[in-house]
Amino acid sequence: MVRAEIVQCNVRRLAEYARFHGLRIRPHTKTHKSRKLARLQLEAGATGLTVAKAGEAEQMAMECEDLLVAYPAVDPARCTRLARLARDCTVRVAVDSTTAVENLSAAAISVASTIGLLVDIDVGMGRTGVATPEDALELARAIASTKGVRLDGLFYYPGHIWAAADQQGRALAEVSARLEEVIDLWRTHGFESPIVSGGSTPTAFQSHLIKPGTEIRPGTYIFNDMNTVRGGFCTLDDCAAAVVCTVVSTAVKNQIVLDGGSKTFTSDRCIPAPESGHGHLMEYSEARLTQLSEEHCQVDVSLCASRPKIGERVTVIPNHICPCVNLQDAFYWQEAKGDIERVTVDARGKLS
Amino acid sequence: MVRAEIVQCNVRRLAEYARFHGLRIRPHTKTHKSRKLARLQLEAGATGLTVAKAGEAEQMAMECEDLLVAYPAVDPARCTRLARLARDCTVRVAVDSTTAVENLSAAAISVASTIGLLVDIDVGMGRTGVATPEDALELARAIASTKGVRLDGLFYYPGHIWAAADQQGRALAEVSARLEEVIDLWRTHGFESPIVSGGSTPTAFQSHLIKPGTEIRPGTYIFNDMNTVRGGFCTLDDCAAAVVCTVVSTAVKNQIVLDGGSKTFTSDRCIPAPESGHGHLMEYSEARLTQLSEEHCQVDVSLCASRPKIGERVTVIPNHICPCVNLQDAFYWQEAKGDIERVTVDARGKLS
Repeated sequence: MVRAEIVQCNVRRLAEYARFHGLRIRPHTKTHKSRKLARLQLEAGATGLTVAKAGEAEQMAMECEDLLVAYPAVDPARCTRLARLARDCTVRVAVDSTTAVENLSAAAISVASTIGLLVDIDVGMGRTGVATPEDALELARAIASTKGVRLDGLFYYPGHIWAAADQQGRALAEVSARLEEVIDLWRTHGFESPIVSGGSTPTAFQSHLIKPGTEIRPGTYIFNDMNTVRGGFCTLDDCAAAVVCTVVSTAVKNQIVLDGGSKTFTSDRCIPAPESGHGHLMEYSEARLTQLSEEHCQVDVSLCASRPKIGERVTVIPNHICPCVNLQDAFYWQEAKGDIERVTVDARGKLS
Repeated sequence: MVRAEIVQCNVRRLAEYARFHGLRIRPHTKTHKSRKLARLQLEAGATGLTVAKAGEAEQMAMECEDLLVAYPAVDPARCTRLARLARDCTVRVAVDSTTAVENLSAAAISVASTIGLLVDIDVGMGRTGVATPEDALELARAIASTKGVRLDGLFYYPGHIWAAADQQGRALAEVSARLEEVIDLWRTHGFESPIVSGGSTPTAFQSHLIKPGTEIRPGTYIFNDMNTVRGGFCTLDDCAAAVVCTVVSTAVKNQIVLDGGSKTFTSDRCIPAPESGHGHLMEYSEARLTQLSEEHCQVDVSLCASRPKIGERVTVIPNHICPCVNLQDAFYWQEAKGDIERVTVDARGKLS
């Protein structure tokens, strides 16, 4: 169940923040994978959309002509699909290897399109991205001298930054300095970086501290979840998406069982509080979701003053809403006045 | 990618075991959620199928007229769907509450069908199931005196038993004794238990140690995964399902990144070896899948003599194949002679 009012509020709030600081928003659609919600973000001022897969790009291209693939597309099949899309819209891809540059170039040339490339720089997460300014320069040179692709700027993902307020400020200043170093080096060699794309939901409202940043691409902020609540990045009232469950068993003492498990919520632990359980039970806040099976959630209710009864419906805010939504074919969109619409998760289930 | 030969071998092996010990097999279809593989299990001698959800039951009813819902259906909507199915096939449901009995009864009466009920007994997992033989007797009485439902026997799930050989034998003997206690008590009160349904993949080939058992319902055995390999219940050669990934980044030292993450494998840890990583890389067995994001898998290759190159395709056996398959709309079925067929995961994405 997704509450429209909260979604609209979350989207508006980030849009206002970005407007104030002169940042563009390119929301990562991985969180909702839904064309309807992408439209809503675009109507609120997003200047483009972010996706992870070619299949997601194909879905979102029906809503938007400016797409960023925040993923190192390497294999020829994926490159070809993106190159085809690039005939009709602006397609950019984040890359960290010459192989990606070569394969995207070959694909683009073969269908007479051009793909914009952003050089992915590792700013501390150690997942993807070139390690040094010199590596970034080398990749920029490779892109600039390759047909079918266009050097559009820099890409980073500060997904390692989960620290609160003051530490986050310092960590972001380090990211900022790292990006400036690359930009300066590029400039001395004649390369500009019109786009500097980064950001995540935990750092979203601190994005102005990344001085060279031109656009941010948070995903989770549209719904929020227990990761962002427990991380201190929002409150429970900002959580737009919840899973409605039924109590299916109360046979074991001090425990209830809900009809949602790892195939409903995912088994992702809460990043800022790994031992906090598998989500938050809204109506019984003292309850603890201790154990997930595929279709069962065991809930310790020993601390609850009143206890959920068998057959009762309760509402769970999951730890991580992105993979949770990805498990569903659709979700229910509830307007403030009560109307409910079934919304398809259009871009789920894509292989690449 | 699912290899037909290994599936056929896994299915045949369990069928032979069960035939030898006079046990019926009712495979849990949660692992494959595919009508094609259900047919294959039925052709190999399975006497019925197990499902968790009404939506899964509706799919599998197109293949089989004898279904067990291994889940406490409680809410009226789910009960009604099962009652409707029970007009055309044998539908049994495992229950551990009088509420479930009442709601299933009401649903069955309203559509003029009968639902068979198995009393769910907790044999040590502490998830669902009544706690004592007396509770089991009380529930049997309630069922026997309620219209629209029929008392068909007992249900248990030994999902807590992951111990090897000797300890497993003792644990199963305890389960056996517990079931016999209930059966004896029922008999003294005039209740029979024609069906005693239980089992899981880790205990599958020890099922004959549960003396009163009449049928087993393992799921994972058809594919196997790193849970069953590391648990000592099979070998890597028995793993029929793997995820084919591409190396998309090698930018970070001693690491490669694969294009599969928690939205591909699930983030389920390996039960017998939680720190072993997020699966097994077949071609590079010294590699360790250290960290999953939604679409990335970071792999430590520091111990690998030769290292996977960017763009290379590699094969991952996931920790837990059931939720992994559930993330896919389809999988690729590869015959020994090389033919490949796309098989739909028919029963995925069902809400209840």
